[in-house]
Amino acid sequence: MGDLSGYKGAALRLLEGAGAAVGDVLEVRTAWGAVTGTLVPRYLYGDGEHVVLKLKSGYNVGLSLEDISEVRVSAKGEKPSFSPPPPPESPEGLPRVLVIGTGGTIASRIDYRTGAVRPAVTSDELRSLVPELSQVARVDPEIMFDIMSENIAPSHWTKLARRVARAVGEEVDGVVITHGTDTLGYTAAALSFALAGVPIPVVLVGAQRSPDRPSSDAPLNLIAAVSVAATANFSGVYVAMHLNESDDRIAIHRGTRVRKNHTSRRDAFESVDVPLAAVWGRGGLEHVAEGLPPRGREFEPSVRFDEGAALLKFYPSMPGALVRAARRSGAKVIIMEGTGLGHVSEEVAKELKSFIRSGGMACMTSQCIRGRTDLSVYDTGRDLIHMGVLQLGDMLPETALAKAMWVLGTGARGEKARKLMAEDLAGETTARTFPG
Amino acid sequence: MGDLSGYKGAALRLLEGAGAAVGDVLEVRTAWGAVTGTLVPRYLYGDGEHVVLKLKSGYNVGLSLEDISEVRVSAKGEKPSFSPPPPPESPEGLPRVLVIGTGGTIASRIDYRTGAVRPAVTSDELRSLVPELSQVARVDPEIMFDIMSENIAPSHWTKLARRVARAVGEEVDGVVITHGTDTLGYTAAALSFALAGVPIPVVLVGAQRSPDRPSSDAPLNLIAAVSVAATANFSGVYVAMHLNESDDRIAIHRGTRVRKNHTSRRDAFESVDVPLAAVWGRGGLEHVAEGLPPRGREFEPSVRFDEGAALLKFYPSMPGALVRAARRSGAKVIIMEGTGLGHVSEEVAKELKSFIRSGGMACMTSQCIRGRTDLSVYDTGRDLIHMGVLQLGDMLPETALAKAMWVLGTGARGEKARKLMAEDLAGETTARTFPG
Repeated sequence: MGDLSGYKGAALRLLEGAGAAVGDVLEVRTAWGAVTGTLVPRYLYGDGEHVVLKLKSGYNVGLSLEDISEVRVSAKGEKPSFSPPPPPESPEGLPRVLVIGTGGTIASRIDYRTGAVRPAVTSDELRSLVPELSQVARVDPEIMFDIMSENIAPSHWTKLARRVARAVGEEVDGVVITHGTDTLGYTAAALSFALAGVPIPVVLVGAQRSPDRPSSDAPLNLIAAVSVAATANFSGVYVAMHLNESDDRIAIHRGTRVRKNHTSRRDAFESVDVPLAAVWGRGGLEHVAEGLPPRGREFEPSVRFDEGAALLKFYPSMPGALVRAARRSGAKVIIMEGTGLGHVSEEVAKELKSFIRSGGMACMTSQCIRGRTDLSVYDTGRDLIHMGVLQLGDMLPETALAKAMWVLGTGARGEKARKLMAEDLAGETTARTFPG
Repeated sequence: MGDLSGYKGAALRLLEGAGAAVGDVLEVRTAWGAVTGTLVPRYLYGDGEHVVLKLKSGYNVGLSLEDISEVRVSAKGEKPSFSPPPPPESPEGLPRVLVIGTGGTIASRIDYRTGAVRPAVTSDELRSLVPELSQVARVDPEIMFDIMSENIAPSHWTKLARRVARAVGEEVDGVVITHGTDTLGYTAAALSFALAGVPIPVVLVGAQRSPDRPSSDAPLNLIAAVSVAATANFSGVYVAMHLNESDDRIAIHRGTRVRKNHTSRRDAFESVDVPLAAVWGRGGLEHVAEGLPPRGREFEPSVRFDEGAALLKFYPSMPGALVRAARRSGAKVIIMEGTGLGHVSEEVAKELKSFIRSGGMACMTSQCIRGRTDLSVYDTGRDLIHMGVLQLGDMLPETALAKAMWVLGTGARGEKARKLMAEDLAGETTARTFPG
């Protein structure tokens, strides 16, 4: 019996019945026509309802058992360790895009022996996996980390910012950073501050479905990110992810205003309370917001981050001890996620007061996610203002945390740090406009 | 100069010019007709652009300066401390609804001397403030607490649950609980567990704009809540708040599935990933979901809560010390808000492992809010499962916290507590259905 790793259930039985193994070239008859391709192993999430073939184009296609009428082995495979199809030529004269890998699965390939997903490490591999890239740009892939995004820390933000700053000097036209979606929003916010004024587009991109899955969002997200990095006439830090569940439009979000608001949907990322920076369709940018910074401005990055900031979400009966613990573990700034307009209980307020008196900076955001803090409405809010709590308006809690670590990284303290936190530095907050 | 408390800016100048004072009956000519009413003081949020009159109907109306062409004092007021218009008769035979006040501003009135908002404390006052209530039900108001909702704690949940349980024995047809919106979602979830199987409707209601503001949502929310409590043919714990920004439809949310997702909009509350329980229009219930429990089932409340649960939101470089602090401050259950499908860094995972080994229960939810945890996708998630972390699927983090405090309150520990946390007890979680 040949290798059918990752297959299970009805799909496994069908392939066994046909005498197929991973690496074989199969001819599959479906309700909508015949498909020929190399059988690839399933990965992680694999259900028992699909057969996945790698087509000559380099793409994988997932075929639903419901549609399959017949499976035939047309050639026994050599079971290659990995033999990408030859990449298309990438004409000289196209824009240059640096594609930095951090461990997300977006620019990955399957290792045919283990079934594991591994990052594409050479330019040829990357272009052979997503052939359209060659029409868009000369891509230089570079793997910086290979870690799960939940382990990305401020020290990684610093390394990424340094690398992008260097790329600007290397006359790269744009940078794409592939990143696991879990903490993509935090990293996008962090880089927005570290790279404020960056003269080229820096586009973070991820995938909600790994590349071997039927209907992965990885190829299109990556094409859009590279296309925007290569050709957009604006600069700054952005996130490129599916606009909706269909596979034809990519939302370009501002790096400080984006949040992963769904665990699994392809359009999980949303711009909160602000319009999208741009929308990309298969023909290029379809819509670009007004007022985005143009390419080629001055640029003096401040790439250091200091982990001495904590994010605490308030909840009923939250013990003050959590505030004290954040302080003891080295937090010089505490970002509170208060309720509603930015409220916390008397017990927590008391601890914040003592934190501020000892020289700490306490900032208020809202766990509502949408809307903005307003501590002037209720007495308890006014008390927070009087004790020195800084309210951050419509700044997202996650963005506020990244910003606080950046502010500390600049060396700013006291009033200077407070001023930096309150000001709009990278589109992270807008002045209050509602009439009251 | 008469009392014009709360007025400022252009509105203050206009009223001073007319020789008006709070309590005077004014005739105001506007672009759309003349309005006669008693001048009431402004409160808190008051801008300088509106004049607020109390009409004979008992309602307040806010008139924009833009629309006002003339202000005339038609009678000097007696400046009453508070003299509600006589309430309409409440015919016998209407359903009886207990309206419990906890300190929210929804059923409040302005104290004409201080400008402060005070809860309506008698049935007459309540009905005179919202005259339509008399057509809907016989309302018995009862003030249980008068605190800001951010200070509501599990001990208050227990008192509320006890009071509702007693009301069931008193042959009340339904219960309405007015509550500040900040922690309304937490309290709704808590009562959903404590009152699981309650044979009547229990409707929590709040207001995003205080009752003296032009376009307050308070009256309609309250009318809808009382109407549903009085007449709905279903039972259980719900939240009644504006469906959208217009003032004609009220969403009835399931108590375990609702979240305040905006700081200030009237439709700030949303049912997350589940359909609304019902929609109420001015004519009554317009739409009711299938499968809601009918009135009049068995009922054995378990009203105790134990504060020994903590909610921690994960963030990049979160120190393990925060997990240890939660444990040291008495947490027997920790609800983590992980990233994406439910992930945390290696450092936090290590602390959770040690917490579990010492007898604690660690549960995983997602900070994405929408979607569901799935720890089976990545190795790091599977590690969390192996170390005993319980994933809670699509349970909201806030609901999970309230549930954990309730589970502890029942006295359940170990496997029994774990089973209670995982099971669906009050509509708080649904089985996973997506194909993988």
